[in-house]
Amino acid sequence: MQKAKQPYLRIIPLGGLGEVGRNMMLLEYKRAILIIDVGLRMPEEDMPGIDYIIPNINYLKGRSKDVLGVVFTHGHYDHIGAVPYLIEKIGNPPIFASRLTKGIILRRQEEFPLQPKLEIEEVKDGSKIQLGPFKIEFFKQNHNIPDNLGLFIETPVGNILHTSDFKFDPHPIYDRPTDFRKLNDLARRRILLLMSDSTGAENEGHSFSEKTIMENLEEIFKQAKGRIIAATFASLINRIQQIITLSEKYKRKVVLEGYSMKNYVELAKTLGYLKMEKNTLIKAKEARNFPDSRITILCTGAQGEGSAALMKIANKEHKYIRLRRDDSVILSSSVIPGNERTVQIVKDEILRQKAKVFHYKMMDIHAGGHGQQEELLEMLKIMRPKCFLPIHGQISMLVAHNELAKAAGLSEKNVLLIENGQIIRLFANGISVEKKRAAHYYVMVDGLGIGDIGEVVLRDRQMLAKDGMFVIVAVVDRQTGKVKSSPDIISRGFVYLRESKQLLAETRKKVIAIVNKAAGKGGAVNWAYIKDEIRNKIGQFLYKKTQRRPIILPVVIEV
Amino acid sequence: MQKAKQPYLRIIPLGGLGEVGRNMMLLEYKRAILIIDVGLRMPEEDMPGIDYIIPNINYLKGRSKDVLGVVFTHGHYDHIGAVPYLIEKIGNPPIFASRLTKGIILRRQEEFPLQPKLEIEEVKDGSKIQLGPFKIEFFKQNHNIPDNLGLFIETPVGNILHTSDFKFDPHPIYDRPTDFRKLNDLARRRILLLMSDSTGAENEGHSFSEKTIMENLEEIFKQAKGRIIAATFASLINRIQQIITLSEKYKRKVVLEGYSMKNYVELAKTLGYLKMEKNTLIKAKEARNFPDSRITILCTGAQGEGSAALMKIANKEHKYIRLRRDDSVILSSSVIPGNERTVQIVKDEILRQKAKVFHYKMMDIHAGGHGQQEELLEMLKIMRPKCFLPIHGQISMLVAHNELAKAAGLSEKNVLLIENGQIIRLFANGISVEKKRAAHYYVMVDGLGIGDIGEVVLRDRQMLAKDGMFVIVAVVDRQTGKVKSSPDIISRGFVYLRESKQLLAETRKKVIAIVNKAAGKGGAVNWAYIKDEIRNKIGQFLYKKTQRRPIILPVVIEV
Repeated sequence: MQKAKQPYLRIIPLGGLGEVGRNMMLLEYKRAILIIDVGLRMPEEDMPGIDYIIPNINYLKGRSKDVLGVVFTHGHYDHIGAVPYLIEKIGNPPIFASRLTKGIILRRQEEFPLQPKLEIEEVKDGSKIQLGPFKIEFFKQNHNIPDNLGLFIETPVGNILHTSDFKFDPHPIYDRPTDFRKLNDLARRRILLLMSDSTGAENEGHSFSEKTIMENLEEIFKQAKGRIIAATFASLINRIQQIITLSEKYKRKVVLEGYSMKNYVELAKTLGYLKMEKNTLIKAKEARNFPDSRITILCTGAQGEGSAALMKIANKEHKYIRLRRDDSVILSSSVIPGNERTVQIVKDEILRQKAKVFHYKMMDIHAGGHGQQEELLEMLKIMRPKCFLPIHGQISMLVAHNELAKAAGLSEKNVLLIENGQIIRLFANGISVEKKRAAHYYVMVDGLGIGDIGEVVLRDRQMLAKDGMFVIVAVVDRQTGKVKSSPDIISRGFVYLRESKQLLAETRKKVIAIVNKAAGKGGAVNWAYIKDEIRNKIGQFLYKKTQRRPIILPVVIEV
Repeated sequence: MQKAKQPYLRIIPLGGLGEVGRNMMLLEYKRAILIIDVGLRMPEEDMPGIDYIIPNINYLKGRSKDVLGVVFTHGHYDHIGAVPYLIEKIGNPPIFASRLTKGIILRRQEEFPLQPKLEIEEVKDGSKIQLGPFKIEFFKQNHNIPDNLGLFIETPVGNILHTSDFKFDPHPIYDRPTDFRKLNDLARRRILLLMSDSTGAENEGHSFSEKTIMENLEEIFKQAKGRIIAATFASLINRIQQIITLSEKYKRKVVLEGYSMKNYVELAKTLGYLKMEKNTLIKAKEARNFPDSRITILCTGAQGEGSAALMKIANKEHKYIRLRRDDSVILSSSVIPGNERTVQIVKDEILRQKAKVFHYKMMDIHAGGHGQQEELLEMLKIMRPKCFLPIHGQISMLVAHNELAKAAGLSEKNVLLIENGQIIRLFANGISVEKKRAAHYYVMVDGLGIGDIGEVVLRDRQMLAKDGMFVIVAVVDRQTGKVKSSPDIISRGFVYLRESKQLLAETRKKVIAIVNKAAGKGGAVNWAYIKDEIRNKIGQFLYKKTQRRPIILPVVIEV
């Protein structure tokens, strides 16, 4: 490239580019590193047992002293959730976050008692901080959680604007609409690079206003005869506010159900981000003192999660709450790809019990928090950046966002399609991509293990899930080389053993024959060979009989 | 109910009511049984290793002599796919199917060489057959596979109309539009019970015409510079016809990729259901003799299935075909719920390689084969049945369909919400539901096993998948009751063993301590107790260390 000796800034996305979730990004100038967000993401279906996927921070190994600090855009787990797993490893640097974001980070940290104390400085709309070569100005952006901040970053090569997750909402609830004058002021200071949220880039038009949603929700409140059971994400503070406000208007008490719902509401209320009257919230037990028409149940489980409150209610496993014919159940969140089946299952179970179901496909009772094509294009047109990097999204979303950037007049060479681990060089007059790529393989969290589950363990889990396992324990007489008594067989997930006695008897016979043939002559015995023989021949035999391939584990014990 | 002594007909759905797939239904009058369809369904996510779910035919046990025959509506696997697993068990009765349906059934049967020869009588639009007390008239219905037949069934209690899967298409491709005069003629003979396809009952409006889709597909053909790679279901014969016709119009040769695609196309072509010129189809190897702009690749894998042709192409694993920048990839099928993630993965991989992607969310390049609310309402209004049973669908679809029936003026008491195994009594003047329910639990196919995988094996598979397994083999001296040498540990899917040496060493120590404490005094030893101790204590120990719960399998060998 032309820019060999010019100064440049490195940008290294460690998560969130090519996927939805685990957002984390580094800005590096000379040795100094600024981190934006430290999020997590849910595992894929082919990762059984995995709790979360977190960013790969190999690039930061041994670099703790270079880390100036972490700035957080907002309090959703895909932006803050990996803090307890990673913050110590990057040297527990200073953190900068808005009031609500700080509260959520600290609350989550309480679940990890061995973690170090965090040093968090509160910032807000208009705050400015200087961290080494970076001057960061925070500005308010609308999303579906309050206290969401975009970042305007002055760097030695030019200005960067990071939108955070955002949408333009002309009529947000209990919040100011987007401050376009402020955005235009920022734009006037010239944006070298715009990094903008791509989650909604495949969706045409404009996202729904929260006002429209409020009106539709109110329609349900007007007509409901029995209880209203509203399920949503605990972190969708704006939606929760709407449900509470409507409940008050229609003289309903609100019962909270689900650990995270109680947790978030309490926190947001304490910090002043949820407004409600003193007596609105009641305990589940107290609900019986009110007629059904005076009760709203606000709960988790809109994705059909097996352990969440709504599924327990639908499955009649909830301690206090059973569905009734006049109940109106609202599923007020969009379905996360991959969860369609579980949502269908919970919907069907509710309908089976004759309650009513309202979901986002039927009415506009949920708006994503992400701007759609019109809004993204508008952001591009306001900022008129020289360079553009779509962030937060699957490849298909990044590609769609880049099409918008080109439509807004950006030069193709300044529009990047970048994935996790790729390293961008930002110059005062353009961008390039390094050939070297930072480590970007998945780091999986499973229980207390962080990154200890690799491809091998995962593949074993998949194989175990598919056809189970089959352990054969043969005790062999060291003197004669012959099998003593009948080999033990232990199997799980393969066949129902009680109904497979003949299969097991034939297998034992074959094992004895294999061992006796190979070892029964006495003398030096190659046990590794015998184990391989058992694995292969018994594997073939079982496949022929069942067309299944359990993992076969031979144990040979010499006595 | 009032109808105690009146004659009645039993209707027993064995699959397809409360789910999408494995459609099968019995009509029983006195002892005589007529079967409609014998389909299969794909397993849920929490059923690892399972190939299919098939109808539970326990109700038919020992009743082979009562089965008059099986009539098939059309050739999709959710209507015919369980034939090889079940037909022998119900006494290999006479089969009645249209020409294409028959061809597909026979072709599939070839994959099961031990199956008996089937006795299939061909029927078509207008055919009439008498089976015991049932007179069946077949009438043509539009769907997305040719040769789809609805059923008009005269029974001793009244007439039943079974719609099969259907949509009303005013402009189908290479097919006649719905014959409304015929439908009205049937209606005039009075319909006691309408059983109608509910798959589209939650979707507003009217399904797209195949003509609209053809126009949108043509737009892609007009603009494509390189190859067109069109992925769809092999059984979507109508869509395949459109792609072939457009390829001929735009002077493209067609390469077929994927086993089932080749299979279906050959069959449909042989039977005259696919029209094409002699030289349109070429082999993959010959494609290199043509410029990219003269090539269409028609393949399987529109759902992102890992083993299908499109995924192989996207993953650079295909023998001949690699993606190129000018390729246009068409995903022409709706996404089956649960497959959203795999479709996203294949889409991203294609875009990563700079090819273009067209999918149904972007353009109307796929129409479901199922009528939506307007069509379903129209069917209800034409037939004006006394009673209504929504079939083929999840509960939420059946409920939505029932709302349409009520809107069409049916009395609430004659509109049924029924699930698999429930038994309906149809009287000349109404319906009731028996209290007794026929067996309806899942019958799962896994390899050669049909119904041998039950809850226990499935739960073991889920547990194995989540945290793996941990086998401990302790050899104990019969004389002293003490452990001889170090216990063997075999583990899969739990931790990466090579990096867990300390954990294993500690575990061995604990096992030795448990055994020696319980058995080391000599005398009578309770081995079951010792195994329980190992399971519990080692389980707790491993959980404390890892927060994972592998299945623990202790083996104690006395020597």
